[in-house]
Amino acid sequence: MDFTKAIASIVPASTGKLQMAMDRQQRLTKPPGALGRMEEIANKYAALAGAFPPEVPGSPMVFVFASDHGILEEGVSPWPQEVTVQMVSNFISGGAAINAIAKQVGAAVQVIDIGVAASTAHLQGVIDKKVRPGTANLAAGPAMTQEEAMLALQAGFDVALAAVESGCDLLVTGDMGIGNTSPSAGLISWYVNSNVADTTGRGTGIDDDRLARKIRAIESGLARLGKSSPSGPVDVLSAIGGLDIAGIAGLILGGAFCAKGVVLDGVIAAAAAVVAYQFTPNIVDYLFAGHLSCEPGAKKALDYLQLKPILDLGLRLGEGTGGCMSVPIIQASVRTLAEMATFDSAGVSEA
Amino acid sequence: MDFTKAIASIVPASTGKLQMAMDRQQRLTKPPGALGRMEEIANKYAALAGAFPPEVPGSPMVFVFASDHGILEEGVSPWPQEVTVQMVSNFISGGAAINAIAKQVGAAVQVIDIGVAASTAHLQGVIDKKVRPGTANLAAGPAMTQEEAMLALQAGFDVALAAVESGCDLLVTGDMGIGNTSPSAGLISWYVNSNVADTTGRGTGIDDDRLARKIRAIESGLARLGKSSPSGPVDVLSAIGGLDIAGIAGLILGGAFCAKGVVLDGVIAAAAAVVAYQFTPNIVDYLFAGHLSCEPGAKKALDYLQLKPILDLGLRLGEGTGGCMSVPIIQASVRTLAEMATFDSAGVSEA
Repeated sequence: MDFTKAIASIVPASTGKLQMAMDRQQRLTKPPGALGRMEEIANKYAALAGAFPPEVPGSPMVFVFASDHGILEEGVSPWPQEVTVQMVSNFISGGAAINAIAKQVGAAVQVIDIGVAASTAHLQGVIDKKVRPGTANLAAGPAMTQEEAMLALQAGFDVALAAVESGCDLLVTGDMGIGNTSPSAGLISWYVNSNVADTTGRGTGIDDDRLARKIRAIESGLARLGKSSPSGPVDVLSAIGGLDIAGIAGLILGGAFCAKGVVLDGVIAAAAAVVAYQFTPNIVDYLFAGHLSCEPGAKKALDYLQLKPILDLGLRLGEGTGGCMSVPIIQASVRTLAEMATFDSAGVSEA
Repeated sequence: MDFTKAIASIVPASTGKLQMAMDRQQRLTKPPGALGRMEEIANKYAALAGAFPPEVPGSPMVFVFASDHGILEEGVSPWPQEVTVQMVSNFISGGAAINAIAKQVGAAVQVIDIGVAASTAHLQGVIDKKVRPGTANLAAGPAMTQEEAMLALQAGFDVALAAVESGCDLLVTGDMGIGNTSPSAGLISWYVNSNVADTTGRGTGIDDDRLARKIRAIESGLARLGKSSPSGPVDVLSAIGGLDIAGIAGLILGGAFCAKGVVLDGVIAAAAAVVAYQFTPNIVDYLFAGHLSCEPGAKKALDYLQLKPILDLGLRLGEGTGGCMSVPIIQASVRTLAEMATFDSAGVSEA
């Protein structure tokens, strides 16, 4: 299915189901509001699933979109580009942080090569959606063509639809790509109208010198973008990148189109969500912000989307780790709404 | 085993295993520190378990200590005392919030009657450790005798040891008792040397008038306690109560004695931990603060213990809900330390 045609079908979540959930929270055997954010999460889930009571999402999946980034040429990261494909291999072998966390929470891990510079053909289980072997350097010119941005968006959308078709009922975004905090900061700066210095962080832990270089490189890209008078998110994505971000934006649109919850991981996901938001603001009804990344752009993007992160554990790893870690909280929140007794049914006196 | 004799055997956690864990975090396939708090949690767990690499705790248990509180006479809560036993029944039927959350995270729920005012004999599965049917009104006189406080501490200690014997490897504290935020605030005020107004919250959601009454009642109890020149935590516990808090303090001592991790729930657990700390400060090495309760005393107590909460979800329910919700995070943290590949083993290049 063409993702551009699906966008009009991404409708706001059910206000009726939201109200039913909110009403039920008042009758469950607890003081009203005593489950705090868990009540909000459960109610939002009922609304997006259009179900009351909603079923606990039992088949979560993490989608790790891997791609490389031409901006690495600017010296924005001390990590060599080859780490991207090496980590893809690590995901497949089950040795990465996301594997351990996903195993703990019962989530499946899918790894999508949407633009790794090296071949991943030998790595069994990697989903091949490679649009091109890494983006171009966004500081020097467009990261990719508009056609390539469209292909990456469509690939993410297709991954979401295939996963939902296979039974996945909660989608968690993940990413792997050395250098990918740079285009994320750029996209967030562009859309939330913020200085690059305020959205750009130290990623894997860079020093002051590299940070200054990173900011300048992103600023160059944005200056060029500004002069080009972009007409929409595809123009912006093609100028700044990256392929992983575009894939995640497509995944978000696909999840929302299927009326499934999508859990954002960190700053890469937040940037992707800001891009997806340009296609339709209705996506926000389907999104959970899994955690607050250390990257300053994440907070800016989540504020723009009016999303409050579930966790704040000082994570700055990506891969879907923080998103995945919030899954049991979403599940437990829905379970309280779906399974708790009411004051009446349990014979408990009220205040 | 006599808990007072066990206290000397509660030793600091292993600094050797802590160092091994910290060293390994530097070699795992992630930027150093990128898992933030999860690294700290995993390292602490390795130290307390005295194991490297530690095994993922796979048999968590939540212990809901239920008891009544004489201070209810002062009008500190709009909820009738009968709700305590009604909720015990609800726990047994599986209809409470803690049942839903524990089910989601794979934790067993044990309900301990340590001082419910009504009989729980008809409720199959409740562990009978009733010391007395509710405390006396702490505003008017001692909540219980010193012998009763000792019995409640011993009961909690015994529950911990029996659970560990049965295979439990992570203990989560829980509580149920209408009025129990009052003695919690009193104990925290006493030990952290804080005004009662700064540790006392709205519990289940009381109005200004009840809050003022609650503060005055707790202040009366503390004034009387001050005049009595208490010589230790048993004196303080007997003056202020409650039986649930004493039971949880005993559970904490028992868990630490067995070198198991103990996850604190909210303000009731925080008060119990502050009491247990008076027996030996070494307990802190075995404690995780599951979440930050809305009750202001919780933050004061956790600061006193130098514990940082894992979650902050605006919960104010008790039962062990917030503690239980942090269990997958502790498990996943340990799993990353135990199972992730190193740069060497995965063939991933370093920065």
